[in-house]
Amino acid sequence: MATGNVKLLGIWASSFVNRVEIALKIKSIESEFIQENLLNKSELLLKSNPVYKKIPVLFHDEKPICESLVILQYIDEVWTNGPSILPSDPYDRAISRFWAAYIDQKWFPLVTELRNAVGKEAKEAVLDKIYEGDLLLEEAFIKISKGKSFFGGDNIGYLDIVLGSLLGWVKAQEIMDEVKILDETKIPNLAKWDERFCSNEVVKDIIPQPEKLVEVYRKYKESFYNK
Amino acid sequence: MATGNVKLLGIWASSFVNRVEIALKIKSIESEFIQENLLNKSELLLKSNPVYKKIPVLFHDEKPICESLVILQYIDEVWTNGPSILPSDPYDRAISRFWAAYIDQKWFPLVTELRNAVGKEAKEAVLDKIYEGDLLLEEAFIKISKGKSFFGGDNIGYLDIVLGSLLGWVKAQEIMDEVKILDETKIPNLAKWDERFCSNEVVKDIIPQPEKLVEVYRKYKESFYNK
Repeated sequence: MATGNVKLLGIWASSFVNRVEIALKIKSIESEFIQENLLNKSELLLKSNPVYKKIPVLFHDEKPICESLVILQYIDEVWTNGPSILPSDPYDRAISRFWAAYIDQKWFPLVTELRNAVGKEAKEAVLDKIYEGDLLLEEAFIKISKGKSFFGGDNIGYLDIVLGSLLGWVKAQEIMDEVKILDETKIPNLAKWDERFCSNEVVKDIIPQPEKLVEVYRKYKESFYNK
Repeated sequence: MATGNVKLLGIWASSFVNRVEIALKIKSIESEFIQENLLNKSELLLKSNPVYKKIPVLFHDEKPICESLVILQYIDEVWTNGPSILPSDPYDRAISRFWAAYIDQKWFPLVTELRNAVGKEAKEAVLDKIYEGDLLLEEAFIKISKGKSFFGGDNIGYLDIVLGSLLGWVKAQEIMDEVKILDETKIPNLAKWDERFCSNEVVKDIIPQPEKLVEVYRKYKESFYNK
């Protein structure tokens, strides 16, 4: 079993940091959490992720690894005993990587677009695009989970972590815009998965409550105006 | 060794298809090339990549795999004998995945931005961003190659394929805009790597000549105006 010193640089309210926290918990890896300050970024962050200057950064024996999807695969490949995060079959792994990229590059950016859209019409136009994406994810879930509880089968796996980690912020956005992003009438299977995921023992203390994230977001916005 | 029927759906002028062609050649995998028509997409493409409707699609025993980075990893994981494409060490693999994502999500989109920029000032603003990216890639090359010929060491590996496959279109853009995107005075190590990569036996018949791509691009643009 892989050993070594493990540290995670991040903040509790980041979905991308939450992904790494979940993976560390699944693999029972002891680690130290180093608190980052995004309003005044640390030397450690700037030095260890000079390209993006973003959290999370995982340090394994002081060597930095950046980008949450890269970190998840690293953890799975290094700590090979304990539950697997990615599927063992190469084709299933390819399908997981495809959807993880879709979620990060296409679907979740729409939630950010919704946040930034001004006016009812603009918000509705973004929501229509989100709903198209939701249907793709619903279909993907049905196909990949094959009637089991999670994308990963009986247990939480790669795609569960990738999509599930975003649920806190997705629901915070639902509160702030008074809309449904994940509408159980449109995507019943994914809605049930959402419930199962968020109440799962492994993740329930890691994914932040939407109400807390709304508070965080409002304070963050205020920090731009009040010195 | 993995076997099975392998088909690649694409066109010769696509960098992303070229990636897969290089990987198949490295692994000595026999395959059938199915020509796609991007001006009138085939049923096969629409059915096998309904999310993006983009080439390349690799079919292994009729099962489709989409997205070039996903396909490269699939090929490497399934055809495990023959030269490796990704590094064997998990940390090196993480670094490769980090830079592959940077190249596809940040650096190469700037080349497209350059193509679409109108006017000298706008073009120069994009070029400045490209040069910043070039320096990051030069540094990455020095660090990763450790004095060897390629990102992959003595042989072409994952990052060589990912960045090298784009060189045809990068140079076509240099011709069309009469600029330098890869300026050997700024990035001498990467410039030498470029020469080595493009003259390498494995890739030299796959990466299209820039002049041919310029011609393809002009014909493609004309097709919008002339019926």
